[in-house]
Amino acid sequence: MFLHNAFCRLFAASKEYLELVNALIKELTFGTGRLILLSSLGRFVFCNPNVSECQISFYGCFQLKFVYMKNKILSTLFGICALAMSAGADVVLNMADFGAKPDGSDSSLAVRRALEKCAKTDDKVTLVFPKGKYSFGGDMAFEKYCFISNNDEGLKRIVFLIENMKNLTVDGQGSDFVFYGFVNPFVVEDSSNITFKNFTVDVARPFHSEGIIESFEKDGFIVKIPENFPYRVREGVLEFTDGRPVNKVQTTVSKEVVYEYGGLLEFDTKKRETAYMARDYWTTGKLVAQDLGDRRVKIFNNRFKGTVGNTVVFACGHRNYPAFTLSGGENISIEGVTVWGCGGMGVLGQNVKNVYVKGCKFTPSEGRIVSCTADATHFVNCTGEIVLDGNVFENQMDDATNIHGIYEQISGKLDDKTLITRLVHGQQLGFKTFKPGDKLEFVRGKSMITFHTNTVENVEVLNKEFKRVSFKDPLPANEKLVGDAVAKLRDYPDIKISNNYIGKNRARGMLLNCRGKTVVENNVFHAPGAALLFEGDACYWFEQGGVRDCTIRNNTFDNCRFGVWGKGVIAVAAGIKEDFDKSRYNRNIKIYGNTFKVFDDCPLLDLYCVDGLKWYDNKIIKTTDYPAREFKNSKRFNISHSDNVDIKE
Amino acid sequence: MFLHNAFCRLFAASKEYLELVNALIKELTFGTGRLILLSSLGRFVFCNPNVSECQISFYGCFQLKFVYMKNKILSTLFGICALAMSAGADVVLNMADFGAKPDGSDSSLAVRRALEKCAKTDDKVTLVFPKGKYSFGGDMAFEKYCFISNNDEGLKRIVFLIENMKNLTVDGQGSDFVFYGFVNPFVVEDSSNITFKNFTVDVARPFHSEGIIESFEKDGFIVKIPENFPYRVREGVLEFTDGRPVNKVQTTVSKEVVYEYGGLLEFDTKKRETAYMARDYWTTGKLVAQDLGDRRVKIFNNRFKGTVGNTVVFACGHRNYPAFTLSGGENISIEGVTVWGCGGMGVLGQNVKNVYVKGCKFTPSEGRIVSCTADATHFVNCTGEIVLDGNVFENQMDDATNIHGIYEQISGKLDDKTLITRLVHGQQLGFKTFKPGDKLEFVRGKSMITFHTNTVENVEVLNKEFKRVSFKDPLPANEKLVGDAVAKLRDYPDIKISNNYIGKNRARGMLLNCRGKTVVENNVFHAPGAALLFEGDACYWFEQGGVRDCTIRNNTFDNCRFGVWGKGVIAVAAGIKEDFDKSRYNRNIKIYGNTFKVFDDCPLLDLYCVDGLKWYDNKIIKTTDYPAREFKNSKRFNISHSDNVDIKE
Repeated sequence: MFLHNAFCRLFAASKEYLELVNALIKELTFGTGRLILLSSLGRFVFCNPNVSECQISFYGCFQLKFVYMKNKILSTLFGICALAMSAGADVVLNMADFGAKPDGSDSSLAVRRALEKCAKTDDKVTLVFPKGKYSFGGDMAFEKYCFISNNDEGLKRIVFLIENMKNLTVDGQGSDFVFYGFVNPFVVEDSSNITFKNFTVDVARPFHSEGIIESFEKDGFIVKIPENFPYRVREGVLEFTDGRPVNKVQTTVSKEVVYEYGGLLEFDTKKRETAYMARDYWTTGKLVAQDLGDRRVKIFNNRFKGTVGNTVVFACGHRNYPAFTLSGGENISIEGVTVWGCGGMGVLGQNVKNVYVKGCKFTPSEGRIVSCTADATHFVNCTGEIVLDGNVFENQMDDATNIHGIYEQISGKLDDKTLITRLVHGQQLGFKTFKPGDKLEFVRGKSMITFHTNTVENVEVLNKEFKRVSFKDPLPANEKLVGDAVAKLRDYPDIKISNNYIGKNRARGMLLNCRGKTVVENNVFHAPGAALLFEGDACYWFEQGGVRDCTIRNNTFDNCRFGVWGKGVIAVAAGIKEDFDKSRYNRNIKIYGNTFKVFDDCPLLDLYCVDGLKWYDNKIIKTTDYPAREFKNSKRFNISHSDNVDIKE
Repeated sequence: MFLHNAFCRLFAASKEYLELVNALIKELTFGTGRLILLSSLGRFVFCNPNVSECQISFYGCFQLKFVYMKNKILSTLFGICALAMSAGADVVLNMADFGAKPDGSDSSLAVRRALEKCAKTDDKVTLVFPKGKYSFGGDMAFEKYCFISNNDEGLKRIVFLIENMKNLTVDGQGSDFVFYGFVNPFVVEDSSNITFKNFTVDVARPFHSEGIIESFEKDGFIVKIPENFPYRVREGVLEFTDGRPVNKVQTTVSKEVVYEYGGLLEFDTKKRETAYMARDYWTTGKLVAQDLGDRRVKIFNNRFKGTVGNTVVFACGHRNYPAFTLSGGENISIEGVTVWGCGGMGVLGQNVKNVYVKGCKFTPSEGRIVSCTADATHFVNCTGEIVLDGNVFENQMDDATNIHGIYEQISGKLDDKTLITRLVHGQQLGFKTFKPGDKLEFVRGKSMITFHTNTVENVEVLNKEFKRVSFKDPLPANEKLVGDAVAKLRDYPDIKISNNYIGKNRARGMLLNCRGKTVVENNVFHAPGAALLFEGDACYWFEQGGVRDCTIRNNTFDNCRFGVWGKGVIAVAAGIKEDFDKSRYNRNIKIYGNTFKVFDDCPLLDLYCVDGLKWYDNKIIKTTDYPAREFKNSKRFNISHSDNVDIKE
């Protein structure tokens, strides 16, 4: 182990070190020698107090020079030795050795066995998949109840469950990972220094469904549903399935496999993006329908409008299966990973310190028009830094990212130091919002004005929804507080969003709701809604926002807002209902050096309740890429209830 | 504490003892004296080594005689003292002191606080509710993920969560407990000596719904839905609700409160029982419908048949909220409790030793025709004894009871001592079936013949569905075993079912699937299906059965099987698909002294694969209470593939 570690330290930068270290582990298994690190220059001392001479032979192709000192052990060297041992050694584990096979068989148990081994070691482990296509189902997968913010909670089957672990890399070496059925691909909890790289993630049966619009009739419309989206019309209602027929035996416990759907959304089949000015058509997920045969289905809904030939997407009815869930811990990297599809967000980080998403793609696979069925990435109550660099975020069914905190609503005041608080948004339930010692801000539910801060003395979690919270200092007297909100004042992360492509998706580009230093640069946005939206409210989404230092520079906004989501290409908003004159929720925004390609008079900037915004050196290029719309009573810059706004056109 | 306990021991049978004990606790709080039990005759020694004389004054009205011994402490007395102290004292807690109010406000937090206090004491506590009507919602309730056999698993809000507790009585003193919304009333886990008595349990909005059939048309039927079952027709589909309107804001996370439904079942409105020959009409829970106004709804389903004026029940679409869940532990009594309604079974006992349900009623409340939405009681893998005495089980949507074990299917053989087993039935997932040291029987999946027994060496629970199980002895060689099943050979409970009324419900009377001594006597059955069904299979329900010593005597079978469930008034069956000549699943059944009121030639007894059945001294009385049916090729006694069957008509 020590020998192993010494090599790690010396050769961490070498691309051959993993093979070498692996070779040495085998050697140490059979030998009794100990190799002690003398310096960082590559010299070693081999010591074995039981024998006068020792032999070390290496497997692998790498040659190593070292100084051999027979039977000498110095106490100072032991100090170095102990230090080195505590850090753990670098180990490469070949997933093939655990039974992972790129032959269509289920490799979930192999992953489980490898991770169980990793959990028992202090080594820095890299799990390497020989390049191939691996399948993962839920039968042999881990299981854990997960609260996943802005996704759906539940008892999850999880293929890669990485809990309380350190220094782990999953290297797909270019492999394709295909997940079958109702499983969560990756969940990382309270772990640090975890890296995922070089693989693709897909779901065998996507969690959304698609159909091509054939015609519109008076009482509905007809779609042709491609074969990769199995469906049936059962008792007059459209159901999406996994292709298996209805169970023959019907009893009190009969349940069929269905892929629940929610809203309808039109995509432009040729452009492979949300259709021009498409909007959401919310449904109950129980569309009355008639199967016309030949995969043609008439849907009895005459509210939905669209264009023949375009694609109607039946949105995923839940967010149960995000691709990557990162909860707690620190230093999580996702690099060179392609997410073709998942049943929820691509990456959800909550209470994590330092997240890096670099060189990744969130893009639909062959034969589909949707990638992730919700946001590509989303970060809640994170700290440290969040870096999104060099990624492609496209065709996801919601924003490319949203970085925010969480407000809890005050639902009862018990005494002058004690409150009942409530997580209201159904997809925030169970979130670990704060603990004793945390400092909270008190925010008016309607004006979003912070009016008090206090420190948490004690928290009694009553259930996933309600807490009883006592504070160190007295609460503001003579105020009911009920309906106001609290949120943790934390070490807000710095945000670096650079060199990404964002577009063709549903809704907005990115939601910037973080008080850390936020830099958005060198990106290309082609969002159907606002490319950048600043939000935050304490009445519906309960997302804590309010930037304090935000720079938007050198981006290209390429024909953004060709859809309906948001009032401008950049929209600085907040869930403010009163006291507009006083509330200044977002602050210190600089927008410069950007290029705005626009096809009509859509506002470039719409804002209210802002203190401090500078707009300069931005270029506008007119295009004819989409039909121009008429904007009544609207200008390029719609500004209200704000201070220190400086627009230099 | 000791004084307190001494009183408990002496006056446990006295109806005044609770008040007295409560009074004495107060006294001891302020005093320093110690009272030592001398004998069981009621004599005490009061000792205080620090003072020469002591005074004891009692609160309450009860007078106590005791012998006073000044400053004498004998070591033998201390032994008694220690014994007494370890058992804990008897305490009465008034729920009003915890804030429970019979005024319509939510008393869940009061229950929670009381139970938290109980959890910290070794005392024998009685929680007493001053008589009144108490409301319990989920906001302040406990929360726990529960696997509840034959009901639905989930993260539950639980009002009375009694975990790892001993010696607790909940005495409603005749109170009415009404549960609002999606909460589980009572969950008892790994607790012993727990008694519930003298209260009623109801749900504010029942989990099923009802409508009165107005007419049948070519393409469906029209029902009038009473006001206590809120509904809406939304986008052409019938939904049952809690009466609140659809949310105004529709977003990706919009969710409405709906009461899911499954099958349709017709009840005879006048007789207040399942309609003559009614059967289940399974639906997807998404009935295409049209709201005609005035609470009249046309349902576009022409499969459902019934009689105008009768009640159609929209069965509860889940089993999330059984009234009483008893998991593990021992000595659980439910006495004098009425369950008007719940969203699942009335009482579900799993892995419990000794359960007593006495003098209870499971019956619908005013304005409803259904009580429990599943079985009234149901016991899985229990031990000791199960006593059902003096109860009324009526109008529940499934059997009055079913007492069985659980088979796990063998889904893989890894080596000659190791298997992968699977809980197949979706409502058995997560069940604690067996542990190392348990002896299992191996049963053929198709013939139900036990062919091997073995002892569990180790169990690795992979998830709620799959286990890896290793055995002490080698498994049968040269057999694949996959598709066969294993079940625990346990201390099967003795079953005493006496003095109950069972009827007017959906399906059968009782399912007798237990190998302990089973006695069914002095009951009145009026079940629409088989009054008594012996079952067990390893292919669908995976319920271990097979009686070994069953006596059915002195019961009245009052016009049973007026519906469709089961082949005879008493049906001895099993899920046997092959080897009928060899398989003898149920054994040693005696049926005597019973009265069978029959309205046609329906078989009294239908059986196969039985070894040992005696039928004698039973009386048949003919009635004209229902229309007679024609039974082709059927006799009063249909017997096949059985040995030692002795029928004396």
